[in-house]
Amino acid sequence: MRIARAIRRLSEALEKLPGIGPKTAQRLTFYLLHNPQSELDSFAVALTNLKKDTKECRLCFNVGETDPCPICTNRERLQDQICVVENPLEILVIEKGGFYHGLYHVLGGAISPLNNLGPDELHIYDLVPRVKTGKITEIILATNPNMEGEATAMFIAKMLAKYQVKLTRIGRGLPIGADIEYADEQTLSRAFEGRREF
Amino acid sequence: MRIARAIRRLSEALEKLPGIGPKTAQRLTFYLLHNPQSELDSFAVALTNLKKDTKECRLCFNVGETDPCPICTNRERLQDQICVVENPLEILVIEKGGFYHGLYHVLGGAISPLNNLGPDELHIYDLVPRVKTGKITEIILATNPNMEGEATAMFIAKMLAKYQVKLTRIGRGLPIGADIEYADEQTLSRAFEGRREF
Repeated sequence: MRIARAIRRLSEALEKLPGIGPKTAQRLTFYLLHNPQSELDSFAVALTNLKKDTKECRLCFNVGETDPCPICTNRERLQDQICVVENPLEILVIEKGGFYHGLYHVLGGAISPLNNLGPDELHIYDLVPRVKTGKITEIILATNPNMEGEATAMFIAKMLAKYQVKLTRIGRGLPIGADIEYADEQTLSRAFEGRREF
Repeated sequence: MRIARAIRRLSEALEKLPGIGPKTAQRLTFYLLHNPQSELDSFAVALTNLKKDTKECRLCFNVGETDPCPICTNRERLQDQICVVENPLEILVIEKGGFYHGLYHVLGGAISPLNNLGPDELHIYDLVPRVKTGKITEIILATNPNMEGEATAMFIAKMLAKYQVKLTRIGRGLPIGADIEYADEQTLSRAFEGRREF
């Protein structure tokens, strides 16, 4: 049986999303078929306007409604700390915690030779002028604790070594609530390395 | 930090999809932010046109480009068998197998008192006129082998008992490739019930 073109087209669009395979895409399409037209239309408008209604901050490369973003223009935030993250989503998570009060810098990903992502494709070199102002005292490297994230943190640390700025890396070890019994070797070894006096 | 409205709006639309929670919705939104506008636009068009470009078959209630659907109008298919399924997606899966050559009947779901879905909300009674034509010799009840699907199959079997038509239920037992060791009791009991001579 030939699948209706309209169904195939939406399935294919959904299938391009990360973590959504052909089966799930089809299931979602048939689910959407039962939604009122108004819901489909507002979903469609949200998609079309996603990029039009958002701006990239020229200072930190975060995504928001304004450029510069509300964090960069907020004078109540600490102006001498920059937390370097891979993606804007990570800023949301950190901000939710409410424990960090400095500025951010979004790289737009991590160095990954396998995916053809080098420092030139990311906002890595854009960190230099921010450091050169002399106003920054600490750069917190909050890239992901995986191979790409560690390599990126290392690259940035090397790049900024000649500047008068403290470079720190977020702590690695066992997550809260974890079981040592089930921890992997690398995490455990990092937890021992990062031990503190009680 | 306030999340940009455009991001929130798309996240909320994605979150309404089954199996997609708030975290995944946000992750997908930020992923889409990196897509070219043309991709977002064609995704949006596919959503808007999904219902406009599809029709429900007046005979079997399958969804397709034409009414009646290509299966109902295909004279090469067996005209005396109807396979009753809950949703159009199941027709796709059965057709892919290529082992069934009769007609279909889509109920639009299964009887589920908890979800306020009774026989009146489904295309259950629409089966009667199809059976009354006298052309149907077998009705294969292919609703899902769960509580709702079994109840629906039972309801239809009762409803059609007075007509001269063979009612069959798809076999239940162990799926191909399964391990008896890990099978649940009910499946195993059904597999014993449905045993055949070797």
